Amino acid sequence: MSFEAVQRRLDSLTKPPGSLGRLEDILLTYAWITGKEPPVQPRLAGYVFCADHGVVAEGVSAWPSAVTRQMVRNFAAGGAAINVLCRHYGIEPFIIDMGVQGEPVPGVRDFRIAPGTRNFAQEPAMTAMQAQQAIDVGKGLAMEAAGNFDLLLCGEMGIGNTTAATALLCAYSGVDPERVTGAGAGLDANGVRHKTGVIRAGLTRHSSTQPLEVAAAFGGFEILAIAGMILGAAEVRIPVILDGFISCSAALIVNALHAEALKVVIYSHCSAEKGHKMMLEFLNAQPLLDLEMRLGEGTGAAMAAGIFQAACRIYYEMATFDQAQVG
Amino acid sequence: MSFEAVQRRLDSLTKPPGSLGRLEDILLTYAWITGKEPPVQPRLAGYVFCADHGVVAEGVSAWPSAVTRQMVRNFAAGGAAINVLCRHYGIEPFIIDMGVQGEPVPGVRDFRIAPGTRNFAQEPAMTAMQAQQAIDVGKGLAMEAAGNFDLLLCGEMGIGNTTAATALLCAYSGVDPERVTGAGAGLDANGVRHKTGVIRAGLTRHSSTQPLEVAAAFGGFEILAIAGMILGAAEVRIPVILDGFISCSAALIVNALHAEALKVVIYSHCSAEKGHKMMLEFLNAQPLLDLEMRLGEGTGAAMAAGIFQAACRIYYEMATFDQAQVG
Repeated sequence: MSFEAVQRRLDSLTKPPGSLGRLEDILLTYAWITGKEPPVQPRLAGYVFCADHGVVAEGVSAWPSAVTRQMVRNFAAGGAAINVLCRHYGIEPFIIDMGVQGEPVPGVRDFRIAPGTRNFAQEPAMTAMQAQQAIDVGKGLAMEAAGNFDLLLCGEMGIGNTTAATALLCAYSGVDPERVTGAGAGLDANGVRHKTGVIRAGLTRHSSTQPLEVAAAFGGFEILAIAGMILGAAEVRIPVILDGFISCSAALIVNALHAEALKVVIYSHCSAEKGHKMMLEFLNAQPLLDLEMRLGEGTGAAMAAGIFQAACRIYYEMATFDQAQVG
Repeated sequence: MSFEAVQRRLDSLTKPPGSLGRLEDILLTYAWITGKEPPVQPRLAGYVFCADHGVVAEGVSAWPSAVTRQMVRNFAAGGAAINVLCRHYGIEPFIIDMGVQGEPVPGVRDFRIAPGTRNFAQEPAMTAMQAQQAIDVGKGLAMEAAGNFDLLLCGEMGIGNTTAATALLCAYSGVDPERVTGAGAGLDANGVRHKTGVIRAGLTRHSSTQPLEVAAAFGGFEILAIAGMILGAAEVRIPVILDGFISCSAALIVNALHAEALKVVIYSHCSAEKGHKMMLEFLNAQPLLDLEMRLGEGTGAAMAAGIFQAACRIYYEMATFDQAQVG
């Protein structure tokens, strides 16, 4: 089933050609990525990659690192926003521990690399080997999903990770931290100023432009794992719906390592986090939604998956002009 | 259950306050309109108001008037995009014939006022009495829905009705037709130029600024019925999700007649039809979605209802900070 055949089917349905806008785009994108017709009932896997960040020691977050593990327990118990949305849309959730502080949480897949990254204000967040290891986890999960799922959703949880994502944006794009550093999960203006300074110091300390070294300098493990999932998904041609600001920072890593792999990425939404709009522009990405969300976890990706499900139903259930004798 | 109680519940859930953006807004809006907590499982009614337009005689549409009735048959048979979305989201569909040419279609509720409006390029589209009659139909349906539904969706079908809606926008806002006349269901550049001229001629002919006379001058019956549904819903405090460009032109009528009633309106999406962005700005409206849709029928309203359903689930199913021992 070719891209052109999907376009023909869409144009045969009882509506002006193209009048379903992004709903038609997303079906065509699916066909373009996979070489297949849209699924009748999409099998959706939702990954929440979790890890802690050493840079939290610099006071860059409104919440302590302990909240990462508390939220992982919440995911495991089914009480977080992403759990609700997974139940609502029929998405199978996978909680992936890439390096959370404290004891492992039962029911969570343990791929821990270390109990959080190091503090990038003082040293690289991780070694090159750890960076590769995190990428390989994501790749492996994408390979494992091949055949069982039609679409992979990527989200994350990690106190301090808007700081890491912002640093990655600055390092890869050259934009000044002043322009893109935001409130994350709830900093006030003073907090944002301090966070900006910490990011600036990190950028000064880590001046390598080698793609993997940049990623290792700022981290985190969950971000590298998402980059790996994109790289793996590109090999097996499964579309990946990316969540918000932090998940998209993984696309920056992929863009630097192997930009071609970004062909499998669908950008779910523009988050309310300050730097996301510029990050999306740098990636030349047109996100599907702008609901002013800034929660992460994959919640924006889940909302976009809901749009995709509706589009698939339209593709299969609408009458054609011939069937309905219209026109 | 007060607005403040809903805000407190939202702030008790395991997420940074406000981080679900428009999903939180829509729940607060619901509480503000109804004075009630969001419904556990929203009962949704989807109205598709259908009518023909005399101005089609001027060659303003890419499709003949006969297509209106053909699409009404398609709605009755369940084959149109709105039918698919109603099934997908569990919305109960109501197809309302306000004045479609030809024999009535079985399974469609018959509130026909006339077999289409008159040609507004030559005379008023309808009499003041017909305008009031169409408004009363919408009001009556809103009253009928009270108690049975939590939320009303308004969409429409009528060949020629982007011309009517554009004329209403120009007449109520004073904007020049050149700036807002668009392609409707598929005009080329020449067609849009011709349509602009027809609208300009109509505006010259009908210079009254009396709110109901403006509405009667340009029509159509389906637009007036939507205005009536908003007015009725405001009396019984049921939220109304408006679809795109044409449905929103009904809000212009309400704005002129009794602006206070717009408090019950939720604007679903910004359509790709040229004048919609300016119309929404004139109404000071922030639509939920921008999916570049331009199909009408209530399809944008249905997508927004899907967002509302997800928000309601989040409201009831997410764990609180206390329950999850987070923070």
